[in-house]
Amino acid sequence: MRVAVLGAGSVGREVIRALMERPDTLRAADGPAMVLAGIAVRDIARAVAAGMPEALLTDAPAHLVASPDTDVIVELMGGDEPARTLIAVALAAGKPVVTANKHVIAHHGAELEAAARRNGTPFRFEAAVGGGIPVLGPIAADLAANELHAIRGIVNGTTNFILTAMRFDGRPYADVLADAKVAGYAEADPSGDVEGHDAANKLVILVRLAFGQWLDPASIQRAPSRSGADPGLPGITGVSLPDIEAAADQNLAIKLVAAAHRTPDGIVASVLPSAVSLDLPLGRTDGVLNRIEVDGTPIGSVAFSGHGAGGAATSSAVLADLMAVGRQGGSTWAGRSAAASHKAAIAPSPVEAFIGPSGTAYPVIR
Amino acid sequence: MRVAVLGAGSVGREVIRALMERPDTLRAADGPAMVLAGIAVRDIARAVAAGMPEALLTDAPAHLVASPDTDVIVELMGGDEPARTLIAVALAAGKPVVTANKHVIAHHGAELEAAARRNGTPFRFEAAVGGGIPVLGPIAADLAANELHAIRGIVNGTTNFILTAMRFDGRPYADVLADAKVAGYAEADPSGDVEGHDAANKLVILVRLAFGQWLDPASIQRAPSRSGADPGLPGITGVSLPDIEAAADQNLAIKLVAAAHRTPDGIVASVLPSAVSLDLPLGRTDGVLNRIEVDGTPIGSVAFSGHGAGGAATSSAVLADLMAVGRQGGSTWAGRSAAASHKAAIAPSPVEAFIGPSGTAYPVIR
Repeated sequence: MRVAVLGAGSVGREVIRALMERPDTLRAADGPAMVLAGIAVRDIARAVAAGMPEALLTDAPAHLVASPDTDVIVELMGGDEPARTLIAVALAAGKPVVTANKHVIAHHGAELEAAARRNGTPFRFEAAVGGGIPVLGPIAADLAANELHAIRGIVNGTTNFILTAMRFDGRPYADVLADAKVAGYAEADPSGDVEGHDAANKLVILVRLAFGQWLDPASIQRAPSRSGADPGLPGITGVSLPDIEAAADQNLAIKLVAAAHRTPDGIVASVLPSAVSLDLPLGRTDGVLNRIEVDGTPIGSVAFSGHGAGGAATSSAVLADLMAVGRQGGSTWAGRSAAASHKAAIAPSPVEAFIGPSGTAYPVIR
Repeated sequence: MRVAVLGAGSVGREVIRALMERPDTLRAADGPAMVLAGIAVRDIARAVAAGMPEALLTDAPAHLVASPDTDVIVELMGGDEPARTLIAVALAAGKPVVTANKHVIAHHGAELEAAARRNGTPFRFEAAVGGGIPVLGPIAADLAANELHAIRGIVNGTTNFILTAMRFDGRPYADVLADAKVAGYAEADPSGDVEGHDAANKLVILVRLAFGQWLDPASIQRAPSRSGADPGLPGITGVSLPDIEAAADQNLAIKLVAAAHRTPDGIVASVLPSAVSLDLPLGRTDGVLNRIEVDGTPIGSVAFSGHGAGGAATSSAVLADLMAVGRQGGSTWAGRSAAASHKAAIAPSPVEAFIGPSGTAYPVIR
C-alpha cells in the first residue's frame, strides 16, 4: 500500500517518521505492507534540511493525489483549500483518504462524505477529534446499537491548559496566553482555539457520528450571555481571573465545554465556557487532557479521555486509520446512515448559570 | 442474518428484547437485517412465563448451533462447559460467535482463537470486559499503531461497589456484602467477584489484545502480601474497614486494581487490592463504575470509563458485535497477530506499599 503524505507539520512529521522507521510494526496480520511513496511540503529545501528524503519530496500535492504510484492519501495540511479539493479529488478517484483536518470535515463534511460514498472509497478522520484518543470509531461502531442522547466534552487542549493555569497559578488570561505561545501550547494567532472555533469543528464531527446529522459550524453558539450592555466574548476570551476564583469558591471550575443533545426539533449544540462541578470527572479534567462523554440507551454513560493533542499522540490515530484502510475497514462512520447536508444547530435554552464578577453567565454542569 | 441466542440471563434477556422489539435499529446502512432465529434456555416453561416466544425456545443449545437455520451464535450462558464446546463447534462450522463469557475466553482463549482463525470465522467478545464500554476493539484496532506498555483498571463493579460503600458508609465488609447480595450487586456465591477471579479473567483478555499473549488466569497473583504468620486473603476478602479508613487518612482509596505491564522476561500481571491516590481518576472511580487505562507509544495514556456491568449496558456491546459480524468486521483482535498458547504471568516485584492496621500490604498507585 503506497502512502502519500500531504503536509509535514507536527503530525505529518510523526506519521512520516513511523512509515520510514517502523513500517513492519504498522503491518496488520491480515493487512498489506505500507510504503511511504511521497511527501508534499510547502518548502522542499527546509524539508531536506529537516532530514526528509529528497527523492520523496514534492511541493505539488495534487501530483501525488493524481499519481498512479500512490494508493492512499494522508492529508495533514490542515485548513480549507487546497485540502478540500485534494481530498475530494482523491475520493472521486477511488483513493482512500485519511485526514486529521477538523476544519475541512466540519465545514465540508457532507460534500466529502457524499464523494466517498459515491464509489465506496474509505474516508477516515479519527485523528480529527481527541488526537489519538479512540472516540469517533467507538461511537460509530461500538455504540451503534444505542440510541445516543447527548455528548459533552473538553475537546481543546490549548484552552484547557490556559484555564487550568489561570486557576492553579492565579494569573490573568493575557499572561498565561503569552506563556502558552512561548511553550508551543498556543499558536501565534490563537483565535481558532481561544474563540472556540476548533472545539465547534470537533463538536460538528462528534454530532455527525453520534446523531447522524452534519451541523453548520458557524451556527454553534460560542459566546456566553452577559449582564449589562456588552455581549459575552467568544470561547474563553472573556473568562477573567476573578470569575475563575469566584467559581472555585463554589467548587466549580470554568471549562470550555462542547455539548450537544437531541431534541424533537433538531440538535442543540454549543461551545461555551461553563462552570463544572469539581466533583465531576469533567471538572477535574485539567491541563491539556481531553475528555469526551457520551450518553445513550442502553449503554448509560461512557467516557473517553487522554491527551487530545500533540503530533506524536495524534499520529497514533492517523496510523491506525491507515492500517484500517489496509484491512478494508471502511470509513470512520462505519455502518451509520448517510448524512447529506449541514443544518443549523439550535442554541441552548437558559439553564442554571454561575454569574462571575465580570457579569458573564456560565452554564453550570453538576 | 439469523441469530441464535444461547442463554437468557440478565444480558441475554436484553439482547433478545432488542432483537425482537427494534431489529431495524440494529441494521447497519451496509449490513443485513437481523432475525432472532432461536433461544436456548435451561427451563422452557419459565422462559415462556417470562414472555419469550415459545416457538423460538429450546433447551438444546447444540441443536441451535448445528441448525442450518442459524447463521450466528450469541453465547450468553457463561461458565465453562458447555459454553466452551458450543463456541468451538460453531467456529469450526464457520458460524460467527459473539460472547460475553469472560471465563471461557480467559481459560480457553488460545484454543478458541485457533478455531476461529483456522477457517476465518469471526469471534467477537467486546462485552467480556467493561460491559458496554468500548475497550477491546479500540485497543486492538484504534491503538494498533502503538507499542503498548501497561494496562491498569478497575474492571469489577461488584468489588468496587463494596469497597466504595465501606469507605463512604463506614461499614465493615461482611455487612456491605450482605446488602450487595440483596440489591443484586453480588451473587449468592460471590467468590468469583470478591476473590478476584472475574477481574483476573478480564485482565487475561485485556493482555491478549494489548500485548499479544494469552496468560494462564490461575497464574495471576490475587492475594496481597501480609505481615505476620497468615498469608494475605485473595481479592477484597481481606480488606478491613480499619485498613480503608487508615488509607483515607493518607488520601488513598483501596481499590481492586487489575494491572499488567510488559518486561523483557514476560508479562507481569496481578489483581490486587491497591491503595490508589484520591488525586488520580482511578482513585475516584467509585461505585459500579469501571475504568481501564492504557499506556503506550506514541499515544501516551488513554482511558475508557463507564458502567461496566448490568444486562442493559452489556447488551450494547453484544449487539454492536452482532452488527460488526453483519458488516464483515472480523474478530475482536482485528489485525493483531495470532497468540497460540497460555503462558504464566510473572508476579509483580514489591513496590511502595501502604500497610493497613490488618497487616495487609497494599501496593500504592499515585
